[in-house]
Amino acid sequence: MLYLVRMDVNIPADVPPAAADAAKSAEKALSQALQCDGRWRHLWRVVGQYANYSVFDVAGNDELHEILQGLPLYPYMAIQVTPLAQHPSSLAASEK
Amino acid sequence: MLYLVRMDVNIPADVPPAAADAAKSAEKALSQALQCDGRWRHLWRVVGQYANYSVFDVAGNDELHEILQGLPLYPYMAIQVTPLAQHPSSLAASEK
Amino acid sequence: MLYLVRMDVNIPADVPPAAADAAKSAEKALSQALQCDGRWRHLWRVVGQYANYSVFDVAGNDELHEILQGLPLYPYMAIQVTPLAQHPSSLAASEK
Amino acid sequence: MLYLVRMDVNIPADVPPAAADAAKSAEKALSQALQCDGRWRHLWRVVGQYANYSVFDVAGNDELHEILQGLPLYPYMAIQVTPLAQHPSSLAASEK
Amino acid sequence: MLYLVRMDVNIPADVPPAAADAAKSAEKALSQALQCDGRWRHLWRVVGQYANYSVFDVAGNDELHEILQGLPLYPYMAIQVTPLAQHPSSLAASEK
Amino acid sequence: MLYLVRMDVNIPADVPPAAADAAKSAEKALSQALQCDGRWRHLWRVVGQYANYSVFDVAGNDELHEILQGLPLYPYMAIQVTPLAQHPSSLAASEK
Amino acid sequence: MLYLVRMDVNIPADVPPAAADAAKSAEKALSQALQCDGRWRHLWRVVGQYANYSVFDVAGNDELHEILQGLPLYPYMAIQVTPLAQHPSSLAASEK
Amino acid sequence: MLYLVRMDVNIPADVPPAAADAAKSAEKALSQALQCDGRWRHLWRVVGQYANYSVFDVAGNDELHEILQGLPLYPYMAIQVTPLAQHPSSLAASEK
Amino acid sequence: MLYLVRMDVNIPADVPPAAADAAKSAEKALSQALQCDGRWRHLWRVVGQYANYSVFDVAGNDELHEILQGLPLYPYMAIQVTPLAQHPSSLAASEK
Amino acid sequence: MLYLVRMDVNIPADVPPAAADAAKSAEKALSQALQCDGRWRHLWRVVGQYANYSVFDVAGNDELHEILQGLPLYPYMAIQVTPLAQHPSSLAASEK
Repeated sequence: MLYLVRMDVNIPADVPPAAADAAKSAEKALSQALQCDGRWRHLWRVVGQYANYSVFDVAGNDELHEILQGLPLYPYMAIQVTPLAQHPSSLAASEK
Repeated sequence: MLYLVRMDVNIPADVPPAAADAAKSAEKALSQALQCDGRWRHLWRVVGQYANYSVFDVAGNDELHEILQGLPLYPYMAIQVTPLAQHPSSLAASEK
Repeated sequence: MLYLVRMDVNIPADVPPAAADAAKSAEKALSQALQCDGRWRHLWRVVGQYANYSVFDVAGNDELHEILQGLPLYPYMAIQVTPLAQHPSSLAASEK
Repeated sequence: MLYLVRMDVNIPADVPPAAADAAKSAEKALSQALQCDGRWRHLWRVVGQYANYSVFDVAGNDELHEILQGLPLYPYMAIQVTPLAQHPSSLAASEK
Repeated sequence: MLYLVRMDVNIPADVPPAAADAAKSAEKALSQALQCDGRWRHLWRVVGQYANYSVFDVAGNDELHEILQGLPLYPYMAIQVTPLAQHPSSLAASEK
Repeated sequence: MLYLVRMDVNIPADVPPAAADAAKSAEKALSQALQCDGRWRHLWRVVGQYANYSVFDVAGNDELHEILQGLPLYPYMAIQVTPLAQHPSSLAASEK
Repeated sequence: MLYLVRMDVNIPADVPPAAADAAKSAEKALSQALQCDGRWRHLWRVVGQYANYSVFDVAGNDELHEILQGLPLYPYMAIQVTPLAQHPSSLAASEK
Repeated sequence: MLYLVRMDVNIPADVPPAAADAAKSAEKALSQALQCDGRWRHLWRVVGQYANYSVFDVAGNDELHEILQGLPLYPYMAIQVTPLAQHPSSLAASEK
Repeated sequence: MLYLVRMDVNIPADVPPAAADAAKSAEKALSQALQCDGRWRHLWRVVGQYANYSVFDVAGNDELHEILQGLPLYPYMAIQVTPLAQHPSSLAASEK
Repeated sequence: MLYLVRMDVNIPADVPPAAADAAKSAEKALSQALQCDGRWRHLWRVVGQYANYSVFDVAGNDELHEILQGLPLYPYMAIQVTPLAQHPSSLAASEK
């Protein structure tokens, strides 16, 4: 099941740089693991912003929330989720 | 070059049904041609709305505008374009 | 899987009353059928507005979109969908 | 009498973790007590957000405000209340 | 139980003047009947707008919706409802 | 002359509790004095929020600003003022 | 007493040109009469828009509403009113 | 050339009171000098808010920006500028 | 003097195509005359929208309003004007 | 390829003045280097705000993001990017 997710990152200035770096590294590693297993299907940077648009392919609402809540940068992100459905003109049958 | 595009369709009630159907059919055919040649890379329905999120892979701003302006439903759509860049954590090297 | 859905109804003044009434009757019948089979789990009127908040319990995004798109009043509604997940403090184990 | 309530939680970073944990635990306990006595009828997590949608069944506006104001996380929440009424198509007679 | 209600009136230009006048007269009569029986407790014009702020004192959400839905101008109004509670600094004990 | 006033209170976390309590007590005392002399005609709590809707009956814009600016919680409040006029359907002749 | 008023004019396309012109002429005449007697103190065009910002100097809320409601273009305008007070740094003592 | 300017002042709580008072005094003195030389033509308080609406009469965009940027409270203000033009119904020929 | 101007065009469906085409042709001709004489300095299409961002270089607010109000498509455009000033880091001395 | 970029600068009060000044100086130097090589084509101050509108002429989305992300004030800026296309009425053939 597909979801479009927008994440806006805002790390407060008083987070120690080492802690911020550690969170970013862990975020990257987890993100790549989820890309490898197919659940974080797309990941794009929004030009000019510390933000991304992503597409997740997961079993459902609960799995998506568990993944997002488990991200190391989760406490510093504003997240918007849009559920997606198969488009009747789409050629990508598997993209439902 | 990638762009996230959201299209909200609103066909006025006084468009004759035959004209609306013709526009929808032409839109579908053009959409699928653009999917085949790789420029309309993704196409998803927004759940509960006559709207879609799409990802285009084109040479740049001018080509994208020409494509969008040429869509049969263009007169009836509100369109928002977000330019995308390569994300440093993305494994999809080709997705820039 | 649960979704909170808000529907705002706006039937244009130039829809013939008989057509509007027919759509409303069909909407009610379909709504009650979906309530009976458990997929339209809750249905509440927003006080002072021709709008409702509903909770749907369906297999996923595609089934929800098919249901909403199939509603007789769908052409006249603005719909917002919020995916819901199990809350850690909820006692309703089955409400995921 | 039913109300849809949305709560967005934002605990400031300078609240000591022990105080935050204590507030969360007390919130959970009170939430479950209110679920048991029937006044906090539904509680769902909004996917991707530290937020919930809830439905309360209380005697009226004053009782609802007393409950919300008494929540341990109340100082850290933005709350929106929507009064609900019986929907003419609802089969749930008791859901007024 | 008290509610603050804002009503913005917008009668479409194609409503025949006689029908608009009849609706306005009926609205006024019903409004004054509800003022007399104490349920429409306050009624003020918003300066510069075809809009009012009102305070209703009714048994609850369902009664308020029935009253609002029954107003002759209801099809032409956008209505916002804010539930009110007793304020701890208010001297008006009966204003709960 | 009547005005609808909405006040949203937000006392920063770093205001010492004693100072906050003193301001709240002074606010309550002043509010009640203004209710007694008829200028703060109504005061209601917004359900679920640290906010109120009030109606003031004062000589004009300058007096209203002096009252609001003199409130002990004024530095911590966001205030919106809506001027009100006599409604032609209102039975309350004195409510202009 | 002073008020800042913004008026956005939107005459529907189906108003006959003669009727629109008549309303504009009457609006201009009434506007200038009110400027002459001192109640419509300032009148400025917003650059690029069919809109104006005006300052009125009237006895109070009711007089302002009567003036605005009596404007020939009133049915075609969206109006926002902001009450103004004497500024402590203003040298214009009479501008209260 | 005329401009409507709205300034919302928000002095952070951690600015030392002496520094805030000094900035306010300097702001008042500069404001009055600019009123005397005719460039700050009007200055009004927004009722209930630490904000003002002002009208400036300056040579153009650059002079206006220099004035605003030079205000002692500039670092603490959110400023909105609306360029004004002569209104065809205005009797104030000099108000262009 | 420079201004950034955004124009969103929305020609109603009931404007006869010949009239719409005539207005567009006249708009193009006038636009190019103003580009030639240096007052319409830049003109760009917003990707995906029937809208443009333009930069005007005119004597002031009144001249800009006269130009915009004189555009053949003016009745069908929503226009936003932002006054621009010399930026201290700009190398374009003439761009004030 | 052209992009309109709006940057709103907000340097937190707790950034040491020396660090802020260093960032501003570096920003100015880099901005002017990019103006010299033609990629930062226009740079204008928004009147009354610590903000600018700029036009960039770069190879595409990725180059634009790299430039913006590399600005010394990037951590303190909110940035909005609008992709631009050739306008059919523009005389500036090279402005695509």
